[in-house]
Amino acid sequence: MPDAAKIRETLSTYVERWNASDKDGWLSLFVEDATQEDPVGGPVNTGHEAIGRFWDLMKGMGDSRLEIAAGPIVCGAEAAMPIRITADVGGTSLALDAVDVMSFAEDGRIASMRAFVELPGA
Amino acid sequence: MPDAAKIRETLSTYVERWNASDKDGWLSLFVEDATQEDPVGGPVNTGHEAIGRFWDLMKGMGDSRLEIAAGPIVCGAEAAMPIRITADVGGTSLALDAVDVMSFAEDGRIASMRAFVELPGA
Repeated sequence: MPDAAKIRETLSTYVERWNASDKDGWLSLFVEDATQEDPVGGPVNTGHEAIGRFWDLMKGMGDSRLEIAAGPIVCGAEAAMPIRITADVGGTSLALDAVDVMSFAEDGRIASMRAFVELPGA
Repeated sequence: MPDAAKIRETLSTYVERWNASDKDGWLSLFVEDATQEDPVGGPVNTGHEAIGRFWDLMKGMGDSRLEIAAGPIVCGAEAAMPIRITADVGGTSLALDAVDVMSFAEDGRIASMRAFVELPGA
């Protein structure tokens, strides 16, 4: 089981690298065959290449910033992280509450990620 | 797929009935063969009788109160609900951030529930 402190470090680094637009650093936090479902119910991206395409799509839509809103709450090899997303999309400011639910590999990297978020107009 | 409004109603009623100590009303929000894992990584309770024993155990430990902290965030037949738990256990006041992750049956009742929470001293 990965150490809780290591998981917390992965999560804070995840947010920092997203906000710093450090794509390679952010992708390196996922294991090679990680799965990512963002939003929950949408397509599941598997592996760095597919998750990198998700990054490109999101970053191409406009500026966005993540902030940890509570926790993160770590239970064994899993965690739930409430986040506040602020974004500027086509001149419109958005603020969204989301929850990222993740599982972690032995080394503390992300093995799976599911993002609970309600997209405006979806 | 259950209606998002119906899921939101289940979640607000879930919190209200917990706080009102309405055990039967709270249990009726789960389908008969629902699974409940609280905390994540702990034993999984299946069905009203086992979930009712969880209620008895928690309520026997002292007063506790739930408050929805953000969202809930509903994605299809699933939802994540950040909550704030305040409890009085043996004269000691506790405040904990938690996230309940749930799936729902067609009628909007809870089919599965997993509670991300870090218990003090665990």
